[in-house]
Amino acid sequence: MAAPPAVKALFFDMFGTMLDWRGSVAREVEAVLGPLGHRLDWLDFADAWRKSAMAESNQPNSTYCKLDALHRRHLLAILPRFGIGALGDATIDHLNLCWHRLDAWPDVPAGLARLGSKFIIAPVSNGNISLMVDVARRNGFAFDAILGAELARAFKLKPVVYLTACEALDLAPGECMMVAAHMMDLSAAGALGLRTGFIHRPHEFGPDKGEPVPQLPVDVVASSTGDLADKLGA
Amino acid sequence: MAAPPAVKALFFDMFGTMLDWRGSVAREVEAVLGPLGHRLDWLDFADAWRKSAMAESNQPNSTYCKLDALHRRHLLAILPRFGIGALGDATIDHLNLCWHRLDAWPDVPAGLARLGSKFIIAPVSNGNISLMVDVARRNGFAFDAILGAELARAFKLKPVVYLTACEALDLAPGECMMVAAHMMDLSAAGALGLRTGFIHRPHEFGPDKGEPVPQLPVDVVASSTGDLADKLGA
Repeated sequence: MAAPPAVKALFFDMFGTMLDWRGSVAREVEAVLGPLGHRLDWLDFADAWRKSAMAESNQPNSTYCKLDALHRRHLLAILPRFGIGALGDATIDHLNLCWHRLDAWPDVPAGLARLGSKFIIAPVSNGNISLMVDVARRNGFAFDAILGAELARAFKLKPVVYLTACEALDLAPGECMMVAAHMMDLSAAGALGLRTGFIHRPHEFGPDKGEPVPQLPVDVVASSTGDLADKLGA
Repeated sequence: MAAPPAVKALFFDMFGTMLDWRGSVAREVEAVLGPLGHRLDWLDFADAWRKSAMAESNQPNSTYCKLDALHRRHLLAILPRFGIGALGDATIDHLNLCWHRLDAWPDVPAGLARLGSKFIIAPVSNGNISLMVDVARRNGFAFDAILGAELARAFKLKPVVYLTACEALDLAPGECMMVAAHMMDLSAAGALGLRTGFIHRPHEFGPDKGEPVPQLPVDVVASSTGDLADKLGA
């Protein structure tokens, strides 16, 4: 049996895998709405926003738009649920762009730098290019390219998103590894022939509420980006 | 009169402006064909290949394909002109990918790092994403994103290439500066409202055969990326 081809590129899911969207969104929303006198459970708000947006992007027949635009629609939808009335457009825009101000999990900047020394590294995220550029600059990520939904003009889990990323690098799917904290993402990529790397993020949805270590087979399971670098020899 | 908006992103032409394609292609082609016994003027070969490829990509009705594919067709077209007969597919492919092995002009790595500390920086080149990734890794460029022809699925000088780059960053054209050693590129960008930065590359096409400093107005004229950083306060 021939050995599988060597992995040359790593594709990263970003929200939850690399970025603590929940803690960051809660902090940023509080920073905007708190001074306006609003009092609410900021983590609940972050959860509701994320859940609402993903329910749309994950639909098999979803229509592509920038994630910023999708986030904005769902922000407007959930604000009343939390008892928040009319806000000015500038406030809405600033709130919405809190997704550009997410912080990475603490292991990521150093781990990603190690991975980038051996592999081509790129986000393959539903986040639009400007969002990825902003979080990369904020957190010191040195990606080789921004691949993902905007390049493919479709949302994950659509096959075209993963295949467009491989094709942009002139690589076969088997030379690319999708890295995510979510089995749905890895299953979609693996079905197309990509390699799969699971990073366990036990606290993504709150203390001990992250997705558990998978029961389904993946190529690598890691506890952090540094652990992934160890296991991939980077 | 309102002040013009501040420039937030710099878009770089790559071939000739940042990369010495002529010297690099000549060197790389000689390294492949020399050991096979071929003797020819390697710089003439580089010039002929570039000229042939650009004549196609610059046509107003050009059809988009990866620049690698376009380069390959024009390589096959010019080899006989230089008296070179059948080469194996692997040799053709390796020759063709010499555009992934271009070296930067000496000022670029340090100058680009300075510019990147103040501005979002991205190539807006006809080169495909994998080509840009390879030359960036080779030369140590830390781009924020790879914009340009592959994202827009069209070649410069088509307006959609410049406008897609601005739109990917959520910036107005006036917040973006196209940087090139060629007035054709800057005129196309400037007509759409982008700012324009000319870098003088006096030896791009051979000693003292580069494009002269422009007579038409541009926002900045610089002698190097370092000089551009000085003039833009980076």
